[in-house]
Amino acid sequence: MTQENLFEQIKIKQSFLCVGLDIDLEKIPPHLRKLDDPIFSFAKEIIDATSAYAVAYKPNLAFFETYGLLGWNAFDKITTYLNKYYPNHFIIADAKRGDIGNTATRYAKAFFETYDVDAVTVAPYMGKDAVEPFLAFDNKYAILLTLTSNSGASDFQFTESEGDKLYERILRTSRSWTGAEQLMYVVGATKATALTAIRKIIPNAFLLVPGVGAQGGNLEAVAKAGLNEQCGLLVNSSRGIIYRAQNENFADAAKNEAKKLQEEMALYLTQKGIL
Amino acid sequence: MTQENLFEQIKIKQSFLCVGLDIDLEKIPPHLRKLDDPIFSFAKEIIDATSAYAVAYKPNLAFFETYGLLGWNAFDKITTYLNKYYPNHFIIADAKRGDIGNTATRYAKAFFETYDVDAVTVAPYMGKDAVEPFLAFDNKYAILLTLTSNSGASDFQFTESEGDKLYERILRTSRSWTGAEQLMYVVGATKATALTAIRKIIPNAFLLVPGVGAQGGNLEAVAKAGLNEQCGLLVNSSRGIIYRAQNENFADAAKNEAKKLQEEMALYLTQKGIL
Repeated sequence: MTQENLFEQIKIKQSFLCVGLDIDLEKIPPHLRKLDDPIFSFAKEIIDATSAYAVAYKPNLAFFETYGLLGWNAFDKITTYLNKYYPNHFIIADAKRGDIGNTATRYAKAFFETYDVDAVTVAPYMGKDAVEPFLAFDNKYAILLTLTSNSGASDFQFTESEGDKLYERILRTSRSWTGAEQLMYVVGATKATALTAIRKIIPNAFLLVPGVGAQGGNLEAVAKAGLNEQCGLLVNSSRGIIYRAQNENFADAAKNEAKKLQEEMALYLTQKGIL
Repeated sequence: MTQENLFEQIKIKQSFLCVGLDIDLEKIPPHLRKLDDPIFSFAKEIIDATSAYAVAYKPNLAFFETYGLLGWNAFDKITTYLNKYYPNHFIIADAKRGDIGNTATRYAKAFFETYDVDAVTVAPYMGKDAVEPFLAFDNKYAILLTLTSNSGASDFQFTESEGDKLYERILRTSRSWTGAEQLMYVVGATKATALTAIRKIIPNAFLLVPGVGAQGGNLEAVAKAGLNEQCGLLVNSSRGIIYRAQNENFADAAKNEAKKLQEEMALYLTQKGIL
């Protein structure tokens, strides 16, 4: 999917919501656990219920990997299902991969070819040649970890050198990489105050903002500081949507929460003059 | 496996060699490609041929992920095979994972419980709460990316702040984390000159050193600067061993190369007074 198509979908759905698929077998409704493939069954119902209000889905690879082959098989079925029935939804493999050149190419092929997702989250620590291989695929995107929403973010991400914090240095440096126009950035919603400064460094890039909801981020603050003329935001909610109810009404509960977020997003898109 | 057991094995085998399993279907001998599971078949022959000269095996997850379920199934079979037939070999999942708390726990469970490996390589960018979950498992280890052997390492790893380069800051900071005694560190062999300084900061920790051979690192320089009283080194060679020959003699060729490295390592262990 191109970024132009993504922006089109944002305008059509009046939403920049990404639904995070952090699927934990201990948290899904008990009646699903008896099925042959509870992970896929849960994901399918969540996707069907929320697709009208979301423009993106973000399976979190850690949750799939935990279950070994069962999990990878479910991930495969979910990406196949999304590509077949929801080709206009942007698929993000939240994998936070990062390795040197020839190995990075392997990861990129795994996600962009084997599973045909649109974007992969990538760690910046190993630098340019760990990221550029992800940017060599047409209309595929690397979403670079920049400023994360966890407490450990303060350990290294704010380290200052020559007037730049490390995450600012990563933003600036990454703009010179080959394929930089296919870079997006992860910026935690709990760091909304930093968004204004980040927008000055990268006015046009899409930002993936996790942490709204369960992690305490504020959607209004994120939208005010982060929206640009082409929206430029994908705001993710995982637990706040998918585990809204733990009974047979879980999909309806997820739908209602997604709809609520979408309506709030429509307001901010209107205020920004995009709708 | 405890670090004491690992050191025992190093003394028994007179080796601190780790064989990297970067298994690429395009590089394995053609006669294996016709088999039902060429990845596992190749790995099994390499392991059987090199086990007398190596103390550790390091499957590189990117190579397995590329092949989807086929690859994960092979990874599962390889770790099962190693645990069953070579319980004294240290297994490192070279996965370079890194994510926030509850997600990191998922990755740790995947590797330490589902696949029962001894160690996982972990990215430092997200800080303490992305790493500590890996340190909560008895006799399991997180190997933190510190100074890598690729060219992109210079993008951020050497960034100076308050007199410390970023990788030095990571070393120092990580020592205060809960479970720090289960931390090991990745230091590229192409950065052997930095090893002396690194040993001053972390005199006792094990270092995983990739990059000897194909990437141009020098074993003698690494050993001189990196060995401590409990060895403290695992030096990895992947392509230089496993793709030594592409015909039916590939396992013998791998064995000869592993033996050559082991003999050189025995010399450095003797010079250090360990043997």
